[in-house]
Amino acid sequence: MKTPSFSATKAAEIRIVRRSPAYWRVTFDLPPLNIFGPENFPQLNAVVTELETDAHVKVVVFESAIEGFFLTHYNFLAKLEDTTNVPPGTTGLQALPDMLVRLSRAPVVSIASIRGRATGVGSELALASDMRFASREKAILSHFEVGAGLVPGGGPMARLPRLIGRGRALEVLLGADDIPGDLAELYGYVNRSFPDADLDGFVDALAIRIASFDKQTILETKRLVNVASLPADIEIAAEWDALLASIVRPAAQERIKKLLEFGLHKPGDVENQLGYYVAQLEG
Amino acid sequence: MKTPSFSATKAAEIRIVRRSPAYWRVTFDLPPLNIFGPENFPQLNAVVTELETDAHVKVVVFESAIEGFFLTHYNFLAKLEDTTNVPPGTTGLQALPDMLVRLSRAPVVSIASIRGRATGVGSELALASDMRFASREKAILSHFEVGAGLVPGGGPMARLPRLIGRGRALEVLLGADDIPGDLAELYGYVNRSFPDADLDGFVDALAIRIASFDKQTILETKRLVNVASLPADIEIAAEWDALLASIVRPAAQERIKKLLEFGLHKPGDVENQLGYYVAQLEG
Amino acid sequence: MKTPSFSATKAAEIRIVRRSPAYWRVTFDLPPLNIFGPENFPQLNAVVTELETDAHVKVVVFESAIEGFFLTHYNFLAKLEDTTNVPPGTTGLQALPDMLVRLSRAPVVSIASIRGRATGVGSELALASDMRFASREKAILSHFEVGAGLVPGGGPMARLPRLIGRGRALEVLLGADDIPGDLAELYGYVNRSFPDADLDGFVDALAIRIASFDKQTILETKRLVNVASLPADIEIAAEWDALLASIVRPAAQERIKKLLEFGLHKPGDVENQLGYYVAQLEG
Repeated sequence: MKTPSFSATKAAEIRIVRRSPAYWRVTFDLPPLNIFGPENFPQLNAVVTELETDAHVKVVVFESAIEGFFLTHYNFLAKLEDTTNVPPGTTGLQALPDMLVRLSRAPVVSIASIRGRATGVGSELALASDMRFASREKAILSHFEVGAGLVPGGGPMARLPRLIGRGRALEVLLGADDIPGDLAELYGYVNRSFPDADLDGFVDALAIRIASFDKQTILETKRLVNVASLPADIEIAAEWDALLASIVRPAAQERIKKLLEFGLHKPGDVENQLGYYVAQLEG
Repeated sequence: MKTPSFSATKAAEIRIVRRSPAYWRVTFDLPPLNIFGPENFPQLNAVVTELETDAHVKVVVFESAIEGFFLTHYNFLAKLEDTTNVPPGTTGLQALPDMLVRLSRAPVVSIASIRGRATGVGSELALASDMRFASREKAILSHFEVGAGLVPGGGPMARLPRLIGRGRALEVLLGADDIPGDLAELYGYVNRSFPDADLDGFVDALAIRIASFDKQTILETKRLVNVASLPADIEIAAEWDALLASIVRPAAQERIKKLLEFGLHKPGDVENQLGYYVAQLEG
Repeated sequence: MKTPSFSATKAAEIRIVRRSPAYWRVTFDLPPLNIFGPENFPQLNAVVTELETDAHVKVVVFESAIEGFFLTHYNFLAKLEDTTNVPPGTTGLQALPDMLVRLSRAPVVSIASIRGRATGVGSELALASDMRFASREKAILSHFEVGAGLVPGGGPMARLPRLIGRGRALEVLLGADDIPGDLAELYGYVNRSFPDADLDGFVDALAIRIASFDKQTILETKRLVNVASLPADIEIAAEWDALLASIVRPAAQERIKKLLEFGLHKPGDVENQLGYYVAQLEG
């Protein structure tokens, strides 16, 4: 096992653990809530770059070290300029959507192992991954954004309808409610949900299995699936623009302010039941 | 609550009830069977136009006031010219497909709450809606048309494969059989089916929830989902042309004649079990 | 019932049985394992050509006469030239993908009734069919190819993501494991799985039902579904090219050699549990 190539302090938050040269795990460890913000861009970018360029890695599992949170919403306390002033990535997209579309195209199999909340950007990372498996008892997927006056920005309008169909995608996005593991499986939002005790074993066995296959065969097969299934970058770009436009409107400003007053960004009910709280903001 | 703006007599058949300025319900009340025909075009058009233009409505629920029928097949007793002589709508499509594609794009969330049969045009209206929820015991979705010698004309060949996949779409369309609520859920034809006693409560809570969100955020998010999921109008136009061409062929004329002799258009077995009866017409 | 028009000896292996002029069954009977290779191209081509050109056939059911195998992987003992030297078909594609895309577009409803393994080319034929129904206890669908160092070549990267979504398609293709009937139903890989005792009755009733409908109505409806759901031929062509390129690479050569040493191509564990064995080949 090697430590990743970025600085030790930051490495602790989004860290690569190499089970083998072919099988990596990436752990989100941003206490107390796995909130992701512009301060984490360099870390995620380093991970995606290693996945794109390492000659040996075949499979990566994304998981959380934080009880209750796989990876949750964006950091609303960060200054907007910290997000918008980051130069575009190699795809020409802004930093966050750039990293997500690169992950989808990376020559490596990415698996999101979801225990706890995958909300907003957490769901977007899961959707940008190749596969998603969820804890039946402990996973919550959600796009709460519309409830907060925000247009989601990292790909779900492009990805969810193609994955689960227009009707269920609109329910997830416009209902903005918490989706537990079982329902996520029924909808195809995750590949499958497992009893919590079985999730790690299943994902580990699948990753070990894939890691035993030939890398070129994997990447050529994935590349052809990409042709049939990935949205065009322009659709993701349009989402990001719509998100940025929505953030500065009064609806979002007022709703996010109320959520923060209720307790957003602090451990407790609002973070644990965001789907409930976004429906308590009107008027 | 206001009454809709079209004439009182017709308003009774397809009527808007405003639970609030943001949350409307549209009730189909065309006794005895909720058969929809060209005589109902102006009513549905008025509803769609209000949904497109009202500044406050955010969510609309379509439901039925007729026991056993959400909205069923087209009116086969109407003269063909009553359908074909209606001028095209604003999309350039013929009247019925025009209204359906406008509903799909309307800046409002549409939810079909399906209890009873959603057959033919009833299924097409449900498929043109953003989401569909069904009574487990009382919902029947179906496209019986191929069994009657008709090519379906209001969008299902374009919409169903994108929603539920090619294989299940072909089964629904070419099998032409009744699909109960549970199977519709398994196939993704509806978002979910609920025990009949729970359907109204779920749909109402979801609608109230969405009605509490910001309208601009809803419509921008939906617009981006539309990009990823709506068929091009030309596909719907091609279906309508194929339907009109099929109606005048002997196969349809003979099959519809037999169905009418068996009891189509009258309360009873044929209307209740249309999937069964279309398979009794050969020879 | 008529015998098919190709030679009696070969006819026995892939044979048409006409239940009626409108309802045909095609039986795969290539003992002992229903392995399909270039030697079977003329037989399958004759079947597809008859389905394309017969004026009366409306529905065809594909089934197996071999216990445990619907139709399994390609013949690895055949010389590569026997596959590559066959002239392209009428679509311009190479022989096998040509037959598969023609089946998908044929003016007849094709139903795969899957009992036993549908692996590799067997799954590709099932996916090229219009619908798939599976025995809950006895069906296994799989794409083992990546595990053998091969890029699948007959359409699954184009078809599976459109049918079951990107995430589950990547799991099937890159996990390369056996998918039992129940999971295939959950994923939408098959329309439905049935208790083994019910499969034949369901499929037969559906086929009889469809055979009672009007052929022109069926084919026009299917043609419009095709527009919405079939991949472009170029995607299938790219898969075939990728398969041929992969076969001659060391990864595939070594892995296929090991599988043959383990017992591939002979009745027994390797053929019965190919998903397990492809994960035992590393190093």
